[in-house]
Amino acid sequence: MFKKILIANRGEIAVRIIRACREMGIRTVAVYSEGDRTALHAQLADEAVCIGPSPSKDSYLNIQNIISATVLTGAEAIHPGFGFLSENSKFASICEECKIKFIGPKKECIELMGDKAKAREIMKKSKVPVVPGFEGVIKDEEHLKKESQKIGYPVMLKAASGGGGKGIRIVSSEEELIKSYNSAKSEAENAFGDGTIYIEKYIVNPHHIEFQILGDNFGNIIHLWDRDCSIQRKNQKVLEEAPSTFLNDDIRKSMGEVAVKAAKSVNYNSVGTIEFLVDDDKNFYFMEMNTRIQVEHPVTEAITGVDIVKEQINVASGLSLTFKQDDVKINGHAIECRINAEDPEKNFMPCPGKIEALIMPGGHGIRIDSGMYAGCTIPPYYDSMIAKLIVHGKDRNEAIMKMKRSLWEFVVEGVNTNIDLQFDILSNEDFEKGYYNTGFLKDKLVNNL
Amino acid sequence: MFKKILIANRGEIAVRIIRACREMGIRTVAVYSEGDRTALHAQLADEAVCIGPSPSKDSYLNIQNIISATVLTGAEAIHPGFGFLSENSKFASICEECKIKFIGPKKECIELMGDKAKAREIMKKSKVPVVPGFEGVIKDEEHLKKESQKIGYPVMLKAASGGGGKGIRIVSSEEELIKSYNSAKSEAENAFGDGTIYIEKYIVNPHHIEFQILGDNFGNIIHLWDRDCSIQRKNQKVLEEAPSTFLNDDIRKSMGEVAVKAAKSVNYNSVGTIEFLVDDDKNFYFMEMNTRIQVEHPVTEAITGVDIVKEQINVASGLSLTFKQDDVKINGHAIECRINAEDPEKNFMPCPGKIEALIMPGGHGIRIDSGMYAGCTIPPYYDSMIAKLIVHGKDRNEAIMKMKRSLWEFVVEGVNTNIDLQFDILSNEDFEKGYYNTGFLKDKLVNNL
Repeated sequence: MFKKILIANRGEIAVRIIRACREMGIRTVAVYSEGDRTALHAQLADEAVCIGPSPSKDSYLNIQNIISATVLTGAEAIHPGFGFLSENSKFASICEECKIKFIGPKKECIELMGDKAKAREIMKKSKVPVVPGFEGVIKDEEHLKKESQKIGYPVMLKAASGGGGKGIRIVSSEEELIKSYNSAKSEAENAFGDGTIYIEKYIVNPHHIEFQILGDNFGNIIHLWDRDCSIQRKNQKVLEEAPSTFLNDDIRKSMGEVAVKAAKSVNYNSVGTIEFLVDDDKNFYFMEMNTRIQVEHPVTEAITGVDIVKEQINVASGLSLTFKQDDVKINGHAIECRINAEDPEKNFMPCPGKIEALIMPGGHGIRIDSGMYAGCTIPPYYDSMIAKLIVHGKDRNEAIMKMKRSLWEFVVEGVNTNIDLQFDILSNEDFEKGYYNTGFLKDKLVNNL
Repeated sequence: MFKKILIANRGEIAVRIIRACREMGIRTVAVYSEGDRTALHAQLADEAVCIGPSPSKDSYLNIQNIISATVLTGAEAIHPGFGFLSENSKFASICEECKIKFIGPKKECIELMGDKAKAREIMKKSKVPVVPGFEGVIKDEEHLKKESQKIGYPVMLKAASGGGGKGIRIVSSEEELIKSYNSAKSEAENAFGDGTIYIEKYIVNPHHIEFQILGDNFGNIIHLWDRDCSIQRKNQKVLEEAPSTFLNDDIRKSMGEVAVKAAKSVNYNSVGTIEFLVDDDKNFYFMEMNTRIQVEHPVTEAITGVDIVKEQINVASGLSLTFKQDDVKINGHAIECRINAEDPEKNFMPCPGKIEALIMPGGHGIRIDSGMYAGCTIPPYYDSMIAKLIVHGKDRNEAIMKMKRSLWEFVVEGVNTNIDLQFDILSNEDFEKGYYNTGFLKDKLVNNL
């Protein structure tokens, strides 16, 4: 087992990893930017090294400084957390060259899964369902019409070299098809110098449901069941729960099997997540694989009892998984609310600043993961998360009641928060019944998105 | 189910009960003394009523004011928490007369179990093992010698009307017997006007192990397994864990059955605890029954998943238990540390005062029950508890590591605490192995007791 790990991250996830390490008897090195000098993660680690000015590119994304800090402190491994360098295969390569263990999957997995087209191809080969589409060359207007009809409307036209939402059109009927195609094509040519367009089935307001994967270096791959992350604002998750209320047990079981198949197709050897889009008829399609720990991992820890970060460190150190698929049972229900310093009434503008007072909820079935404390300052350079609030109840109803009372107790003074919005979500009748998808927040609650 | 409950208590247990009520959709009324005007429990309840000056006798023990507050706010029931009025059968009677539901057992149980001699008698009749002893009239010196020998040395001589440690002598051999007897007798005569002396087996450094009981009004009584509370200072519990490492599964099972038998002997109909003394050979003896919720109940909640306060409210409202003995499984291991504002180096002198900074630990498997927050003041009138820190791990080793890292993270500025002492207990080799009894703290760690 490692003796010392450097955590190349900040905020609550750095704190989370430091905690796992200390419970495993592993020493920790925190890195921090100049703006994070008084941050909790820097205080909690055994050692802390400043790696540069506040902007991420100069510190948390500064590979050279991070490698130097690792060598300097004699850490044997780096845990990248999420975001920043966690899905950067070049960084994983450099770690390898420097004989530092990168705590994550082998770099080929990161590379393959980071390329959405390649990932789709691998999944298709492995008979993992992907969103139906046509990726060949469109010959002419008739050909376009024929393929679109085959897929079924609505379809999405998507630039092959796309990114940032450019060169994308949603087409709901054949009448709009040609016009949309031409406009997408010219937008793509202008933006990327490549007018190649793919056609894909457009799933309206899908459910975003993902499976937690755990793999080791001996070919063992299991899943820890599902999380429903459909409560989103502009593709940003806001509230997550486990298990999903939308799935029934049959679908849940087959999705789990498919998730393991997907991870096996790249010989996955760490913690990761298979994200699916699920339509209203419960057809599910591979969306992408995240090759890192995720923000919402605590809901899975609550219902399975597995400490995912400890398992991740275990397998990275070369140990095999200590349990089997059949050992992983779902116990009760968990919900996570992301408590952010932001103003939902001003288009969710982040609200960095000093937290004058902070009283976080506690008691039976409540977990708080936070990098903040009363009197600290949220810097303007990074995300504006104050805390992740996770509740675990014997069933979904108890979890909802627990979350509502916890939100009710939560006191933050000095900055605006989304606590009231989270309370509104929990109090919504459709949410209470489990009737929601990725359209919920926009359609039902927030008018000014 | 009740619509509104008044909580006749303060601090973390009042907060604990408010939380359970809010999760059950029950409105709450807090009561507070003048010194508790800014206390968390008064802020968290739906309503709050001042019931008098700071000294307990004028407020939290002021039955008239508490009953008035209940009538005034239209609460249908009173939850007494622990301490204060929780084991006062007169208070339970007055509630009954006022048609207010007292959330606890029927008053006869409180009365019987409050009288230690009566309780012993009932247990003997029900074939629940009690500490061997002789409660008859001692005729002469020869009779005293004979009975003491029958019991076996060391024996304890105990004034029948005793209390406050007066009229008690530990006798380790026959040589000291007569002298000790005469001195105890005259002390008892002076103190209580009654020189009657009982003889009891003296168990040196026993294990204090207790079973959580749950009963309803339909004759259902089950237990929620055991807690080991042997880490004590002057009979005050300091650290508790569940399950006990000292018991094996056979003894655990038979003690559970005896605990249920003990509770059945008084037709117990609420939450309660059967406390046992266990000697080194694992002989166990009924010590007493507490007819209320206990400080250390969260360790049992952690390993069984049962919300004991919710169950207590449920049965008080007339509902029956929703699960059976066989449904109660032990899952993992839990430890609680009581974090007090006190100075272990100055004979544990309480340290009330302003908490200037407070950062409490969080993360996977950590529970905090507290009535304090950063910037609040611990009043000098009541106990000096800052928080109960409870950890839950997959096994005892993980729980110990979790507690150590949590204590390490815990920041309290402004008042002295026992955090370092708790860390020393957790780090002690004998504790780690599970080798400890009620003598541990005095013998192994604290020199100045």
